[in-house]
Amino acid sequence: MVDFLTLDTDTLRHMQKQLTLKYENFKQKKLKLNMSRGKPCSEQLDLSSGLLESLNRNYQAEDGTDCRNYGGLGGLPEARRLFAELLEVQPDEIIVHGNSSLALMHDLITRALIFGVDGQEAPWGQQPIKFLCPSPGYDRHFAICEFYNIEMITIPIREDGPDMDLVEKLVATDETIKGIWCIPKYSNPTGVTYSDQVVTRLARMKTKAPDFRIFWDNAYAWHDLSSDPVPLKNILTACKEANHPDRVYIFSSTSKITYAGAGLAMVASSVPNINRLKKQMGIQTIGPNKLNQLAHIRFFKNAQNVRLHMKKHAAVLRPKFDLVLNLLETELGGKKIASWSRPQGGYFISFNTLPGCAKKVVQMAADAGVELTKAGATFPYGIDPNDENIRIAPTYPPLAELKTAMELFTLCVQLVSIENILRSREHSSTELLLHEESRVQIV
Amino acid sequence: MVDFLTLDTDTLRHMQKQLTLKYENFKQKKLKLNMSRGKPCSEQLDLSSGLLESLNRNYQAEDGTDCRNYGGLGGLPEARRLFAELLEVQPDEIIVHGNSSLALMHDLITRALIFGVDGQEAPWGQQPIKFLCPSPGYDRHFAICEFYNIEMITIPIREDGPDMDLVEKLVATDETIKGIWCIPKYSNPTGVTYSDQVVTRLARMKTKAPDFRIFWDNAYAWHDLSSDPVPLKNILTACKEANHPDRVYIFSSTSKITYAGAGLAMVASSVPNINRLKKQMGIQTIGPNKLNQLAHIRFFKNAQNVRLHMKKHAAVLRPKFDLVLNLLETELGGKKIASWSRPQGGYFISFNTLPGCAKKVVQMAADAGVELTKAGATFPYGIDPNDENIRIAPTYPPLAELKTAMELFTLCVQLVSIENILRSREHSSTELLLHEESRVQIV
Repeated sequence: MVDFLTLDTDTLRHMQKQLTLKYENFKQKKLKLNMSRGKPCSEQLDLSSGLLESLNRNYQAEDGTDCRNYGGLGGLPEARRLFAELLEVQPDEIIVHGNSSLALMHDLITRALIFGVDGQEAPWGQQPIKFLCPSPGYDRHFAICEFYNIEMITIPIREDGPDMDLVEKLVATDETIKGIWCIPKYSNPTGVTYSDQVVTRLARMKTKAPDFRIFWDNAYAWHDLSSDPVPLKNILTACKEANHPDRVYIFSSTSKITYAGAGLAMVASSVPNINRLKKQMGIQTIGPNKLNQLAHIRFFKNAQNVRLHMKKHAAVLRPKFDLVLNLLETELGGKKIASWSRPQGGYFISFNTLPGCAKKVVQMAADAGVELTKAGATFPYGIDPNDENIRIAPTYPPLAELKTAMELFTLCVQLVSIENILRSREHSSTELLLHEESRVQIV
Repeated sequence: MVDFLTLDTDTLRHMQKQLTLKYENFKQKKLKLNMSRGKPCSEQLDLSSGLLESLNRNYQAEDGTDCRNYGGLGGLPEARRLFAELLEVQPDEIIVHGNSSLALMHDLITRALIFGVDGQEAPWGQQPIKFLCPSPGYDRHFAICEFYNIEMITIPIREDGPDMDLVEKLVATDETIKGIWCIPKYSNPTGVTYSDQVVTRLARMKTKAPDFRIFWDNAYAWHDLSSDPVPLKNILTACKEANHPDRVYIFSSTSKITYAGAGLAMVASSVPNINRLKKQMGIQTIGPNKLNQLAHIRFFKNAQNVRLHMKKHAAVLRPKFDLVLNLLETELGGKKIASWSRPQGGYFISFNTLPGCAKKVVQMAADAGVELTKAGATFPYGIDPNDENIRIAPTYPPLAELKTAMELFTLCVQLVSIENILRSREHSSTELLLHEESRVQIV
């Protein structure tokens, strides 16, 4: 493969013509493929076939609770025990709730705005506040901040997690920084898993705000693609050891274990945080859907079976990730117009174009019938400062469709890149080179 | 039966002795009965047996949606259609959500505090605000207000709904009154259904606050005990006709139709209100548990079947209500120490003791092993100004237990009443009589 930047203008123009022909062919296929969200595919959902049926018309929890009736605010004891084990916390440090961990995060921030987080410090909503947003990150996290007018500060993501030098510097001096969004394992979209050192630094760092909180969205805690899971240090333990026991809220769910829309969501934290939260949740609801909790318990029985179940997910997903990565390598490798992640787990491949190309690539793919995650979505306010990051979500489409979509995608990347190179040569070649050097390499 | 107030002191003392013996006998039985909440009984829950099984491993909604996956924020189209028909609104005027209508109310008020209700007026949280609370009412409504420091103004409940003269007078002059809690049909606990005139007046009344809202908790919309349902005028239509189309939020759920902890909750309102709400909910969650919605649809198929299903509930509940009402009549009728409601539907019997007796009765029953709803719980801040209202919840216990519990209850009422009469005779008889006259008669 040839570095595009070294090719002369005529060669590039010739390639452009050929690729354009191919692109027009794609357009005539009238594709309608959606790769915009990290949704499990049917085959994955089928892995939980029999989940609801496992209730077998026996609705009694282990303590005799009739799960059809009211109550059980913190979740069934057996559900708390199972997910406490999986998240490496204690059963009294966890609440198992409804089908949405996003709702748990959203509601927690809502209450923090009105009441504060600890009953001692002021409500967060009394003054303008800020959140640190390691980016590229998860657009729904950023949407909560934007909704509540919480200023977002973009923090670069390194191979081992957020840029901790910057994080520590900011939180040490600015009392209005109240939180940080973290997807610590197989991060969305970068695939990065936080190193032990990053976890320790997050737990230990001095924060000017005494009510600073880590929103630890461990959405991909068990979502390994390889048979050799990447370890993640226990943040709750780290916070306790650092004498900041109340600093972290851990979120997770079975959305990508059982049913994306009908799983169980959970939040774990210190006992005082959990007890405070339960009191507040008791005003909001009489209790979660315990039948669904019971069904999950009956289906899985124990933590080991959850882990085995995740291996089945990996077996479905690995070929999809391999296909994407192979196509990227075949079509774009060595051309120096893109870089991408090779994740060990999670749901995404993070792809970087040349600066200023991401929006155009996504638009071009859409024009030919392949919808990708909106360019910019992985950054606060939907603005990618370099317009280079694209989140590839390979999980949902069947392999054949994925192949077509990625062939189109790599075509679009090449076309937009060539166009960009040619244009910058027309104007001045220095500009591009400057951009190129400042580009963050995430591979 | 003899009016206790006409009995001489010696007769009362003699009765007191006999009743105390009976009470001590009860105590020795070491009962452990709970009548504190309006929970459906097992027999009622069994009526929905097969609900989850009705999915029959086919998870596709009518529009092809795989209900196991993400999405579907406003609820499945077929679920919206079914409950729109039952609530007499349009499908685009309803959101079918998770398992808790309380959560829908709570979250709506939370957002109103932060953003206001209509995008034009100020956030409710910017100044101290008030809610009107027809009472006796539902403690969980009042708990939301108390949680958010919303001042509650008690409004007496008449036979046809809240005291509308008072309501109209208050809302016309006080801009800080932003809402009213209504349980318009078979109200909790009074059993009252709002008359057409009350509904019309609520829809039409001039409110000083342009962003005044009615929180219409139609929890017992289809929960008739007799075969002759009490009609309720359509408040959304009434509001539209009165040129206040956005004034009302209607809430309901299947908590007392299918499963109390695992049913479907819904909110209905004007299209602008619903669209605004959906946008806000889209920040909170990707969507509700659609599998449970689909199961409900498969189980019921149509509105007529829901109505038939409710007749089965009535058949289970009527004997319980009859038992309680008969026992109250046999044991307390004519004694002029109590009054009570004779509801045509819903989940409760509202019981009034002589003033100043309710707390003692509830305590006495608890001491002998029968837990009733906390006295005062039916009033804002848990304070019943006359200490007279007790909510009787006959639905949960089996008939035999209910009989025992009510025998004990009527005993406690008599004992506490006699004690009260004797004490007031010791002090001065005028005080009691004054109280007695000012007592609101709810029967």
